[in-house]
Amino acid sequence: MGLVVQKYGGSSLANADRILAVADRIRRAREAGNEVVVVVSAMGDTTDELIRLARSVSEDPNKRELDLLLSTGETVAATLVAMALEAMDCPVVSLTGAQLGIRTDRFYSRARIVDVQTDRVRAELSSGRCVIVTGFQGVTEEGDITTLGRGGSDTSAVALGCALGAPRCEIYTDVDGVYTADPRVVPEARLLPSISYEEMLEMAQMGARVMHPRAVELGEVYSLPIEVRSSFHERPGTLIQGGDRVEVRKRVRGIAHDIDVAKITIAGVPDRPGIAYAIFAPLAEAGVSVDVIVQTTNLAGNAEISFTVARADLSRALDLSQTVSRELGAQVESAANLAKVSIVGTGLQSAPGYAAKMFGTLAEHGINIDTITTSDIRITCIIEEHAVPEAVRALHAAFELDQE
Amino acid sequence: MGLVVQKYGGSSLANADRILAVADRIRRAREAGNEVVVVVSAMGDTTDELIRLARSVSEDPNKRELDLLLSTGETVAATLVAMALEAMDCPVVSLTGAQLGIRTDRFYSRARIVDVQTDRVRAELSSGRCVIVTGFQGVTEEGDITTLGRGGSDTSAVALGCALGAPRCEIYTDVDGVYTADPRVVPEARLLPSISYEEMLEMAQMGARVMHPRAVELGEVYSLPIEVRSSFHERPGTLIQGGDRVEVRKRVRGIAHDIDVAKITIAGVPDRPGIAYAIFAPLAEAGVSVDVIVQTTNLAGNAEISFTVARADLSRALDLSQTVSRELGAQVESAANLAKVSIVGTGLQSAPGYAAKMFGTLAEHGINIDTITTSDIRITCIIEEHAVPEAVRALHAAFELDQE
Repeated sequence: MGLVVQKYGGSSLANADRILAVADRIRRAREAGNEVVVVVSAMGDTTDELIRLARSVSEDPNKRELDLLLSTGETVAATLVAMALEAMDCPVVSLTGAQLGIRTDRFYSRARIVDVQTDRVRAELSSGRCVIVTGFQGVTEEGDITTLGRGGSDTSAVALGCALGAPRCEIYTDVDGVYTADPRVVPEARLLPSISYEEMLEMAQMGARVMHPRAVELGEVYSLPIEVRSSFHERPGTLIQGGDRVEVRKRVRGIAHDIDVAKITIAGVPDRPGIAYAIFAPLAEAGVSVDVIVQTTNLAGNAEISFTVARADLSRALDLSQTVSRELGAQVESAANLAKVSIVGTGLQSAPGYAAKMFGTLAEHGINIDTITTSDIRITCIIEEHAVPEAVRALHAAFELDQE
Repeated sequence: MGLVVQKYGGSSLANADRILAVADRIRRAREAGNEVVVVVSAMGDTTDELIRLARSVSEDPNKRELDLLLSTGETVAATLVAMALEAMDCPVVSLTGAQLGIRTDRFYSRARIVDVQTDRVRAELSSGRCVIVTGFQGVTEEGDITTLGRGGSDTSAVALGCALGAPRCEIYTDVDGVYTADPRVVPEARLLPSISYEEMLEMAQMGARVMHPRAVELGEVYSLPIEVRSSFHERPGTLIQGGDRVEVRKRVRGIAHDIDVAKITIAGVPDRPGIAYAIFAPLAEAGVSVDVIVQTTNLAGNAEISFTVARADLSRALDLSQTVSRELGAQVESAANLAKVSIVGTGLQSAPGYAAKMFGTLAEHGINIDTITTSDIRITCIIEEHAVPEAVRALHAAFELDQE
C-alpha cells in the first residue's frame, strides 16, 4: 500500500461537477489500495474575488487580515471535496493548514513553511480516511493564519509529500504537463514525459507557468519526484525528477518565452563600487522585482546597466531609476515592448554549439537580439515582443524538439 | 473606560457600504473611551449560499465538513470589518472562534459552548486593539471547528460578554428592537424600551424573531443586560434585563404571533402509561421539533393528544404518528393552516383577568380558538392563520399596548 499526495488547482475545482470529478479520481486512488492525501487550492477565481472584496473596504488591506480572509477560499474547497467523497462512501476528513500543523514564519502574504507536523494526518490515514488539506496556508506559532503567496498550494503539496516521505507528488492542473514550447505558439510542441528539476525551474521562471518554481526547488532539495498532469483526462503528464539520465543528455529540452518584459537602461554610470546598490536598493524597497540584470563597462570607464521588470512595474521603476540617475549624472532609457525567449536544457553551458545555433537561427529570421543572458542550463535572448511567435517556432524547429 | 461587546447580524454586514458603516460605529465606540469587542455574523445570505454549495456536491453533507465550511462565512465578515477599521486608523485584530478559544462540545451544527478563553482577547484589548470575533462558531478540544446552530452569533456575543464581565451586550440588527406586536401587522405597535429576560424568551419563541432565545437564556443566567437595536440608525432599542421593576408591573407587554404552525391530533388513544413516550420518541429521533403539546382524557378513559410542529415537518411527523397510531388503534388528524397568537407579560398567570379578556376579545371578533396553552408569563391561543392579523390588532388594542 503506497502513499499518494495529490494537489488540485482552482480550475480543477471550479464548480460542483469538477469537484465531483476530482472526488471520483481521489476515490479511485484509494480503491487502488493507496493512502491518499490531497491538497486543494481555492475554487476557480475565489482568491481574486476575495481580494476584490477586501479592496472594497480598504485601499491597502491589512496583511494579517487579508491572509485570514484568503485562507477561507481553500477551506471552502477542502470541505466540498470531503463532502463529495463522503457521498461516494469514501471515509474522509478535511484539515486546514492550522489543524494539520503547517507551521510558517510571520511574513503575511508570503510566509515560508518552517515545519509540517504529521501526527494528525498520520492518525487520520491510519484510521482509513483520505485527508483533504487546504493548500496555500499555514499557521504561526501564535496561531495566526498565514498564506504562502501565489502558487503556494503547489508548495503545500510538495512540503507535505516531503514531510510524509511520499514516493511522489501529483500536481493536477488544467494543462497536460510541460511542453517543449507553448503549444498555443508552436502547434508541433511535444509533451515532455520527464524533465529535471533544474530544467523545470528555468522553464517555469521563463514563462511556462505550469507550476510554481518554489515548489520545484523544494522537491529538488528533498528529491521528491513531482508529476504535473491534467485533471481533465487520464493521460500521464510530465514527471519532474533528478538523476543522471537527464543530465547526460546535454540537449535542449524546451523553448520558454515571456512577453511581460520591460527594460530600463542606465547609461553613463561612473564605474565605482556601490553604484549597483544605489540603483537596486530603492527598487527592492519599493517591492519591484527585477529580473535580468546586465552590466557592461566601456574603455572610458563608464558603465551601462540594463535590467528588466514586469510591465506593470515599469513606471514605478522608471521614476526610481531617474531619481538615482540624476544624482549620478547618468541617462535613463526604457523600452516596454520586449520579450524573453530561452532555450533550456541541462548542460547547455558546457556544450557551446547551442548558443551559436540559437543566435544563428534568430539571425536567419531577421530577429534582432537586444540582450543576452545565460545560466548553466539556459540561454535567454531579449527580443521585440512582435517577433516572439516566429522566434519560438524557429528555435523549436532548429533544435528538433518536435522529434523524440 | 468601559468594555463594550457588540454583535452585528448578517443584514448589518450585507455589503461594503454596510461594513464601512459598522466599522464607523465601532470606531466611535472606541473613541468614546471604550474597549470594544465585536462579534460578527456572516455577510447577508452567505450561510444559505454555502449550504446550497454543499448540497450541490452532496445530498446530505457531512456535519463536520459542513461546520468547517459554514465557519468561513463569519471569518470573511470579521476580516473585512477589521480591514475597514484599520483603514480608519483604528487598531484592530480579528480572531476566529478557534483563535479566541470558544470551546464547544462535539455536536456539529448545534454545538454548545463549554468554555470561553479570555487570555488572547484580553491581551489584544490591553494592547489597545479592537477585537473582531467570528460569531456562530467554536472549536472542540481536538481542534475541530463547530457551529452553534442558527442564531448562534447572538449566543457567541452573550457568552463573550459574560466571560469578559462586560456591563452589557449590544445586539445590532435590522429591526429597531422589540415591539408590543409585529409592526407590519399592527401599525400602532410601540417599541418597548425594556423587557425582562422571561418576557423576551416568550416573545422570541412565539415568533418575534428579534433575537435567539438561547442567547437570552444565557444572558439571564449571568444577569447580563442585552440591548437589541438597529445598526441602520442611532436611536436606542430595547434593553433586555432582569429586576423587580419589570416583575411588579403585572401587565401584558406584547402580542406575539407565529404563522408557521401545523397541528396533529391523535384521538382514541388508550389512557395508560408510556403512550406519550411511544408517540414522541420517534419524532425526537427523526429530529422533528414539537412545540405545543396538549392532552385531554374523556370519561370513557380515552385520551386525545394534540401537538404542533413547523409546517415543513408536518408530512414527516404525520407519517411517524400514523405508524404509532395504527399500533395503538388510534386515529390521526392534521391541520396545516394554523397559527399561534400569544399575550406575554410577567405575572399574567397570577392575574386571572387577562386570560378572560384575551378569550373575550377573540370571541368579539368571531375568531375561533382551536387550542389554549399557557405558561407563567404567556397565554397562547391556536387559531386559523387567516385570522391572525385581526386577532393581533384586536388584542393589541384591548390591552392598550399603543399607550405607555
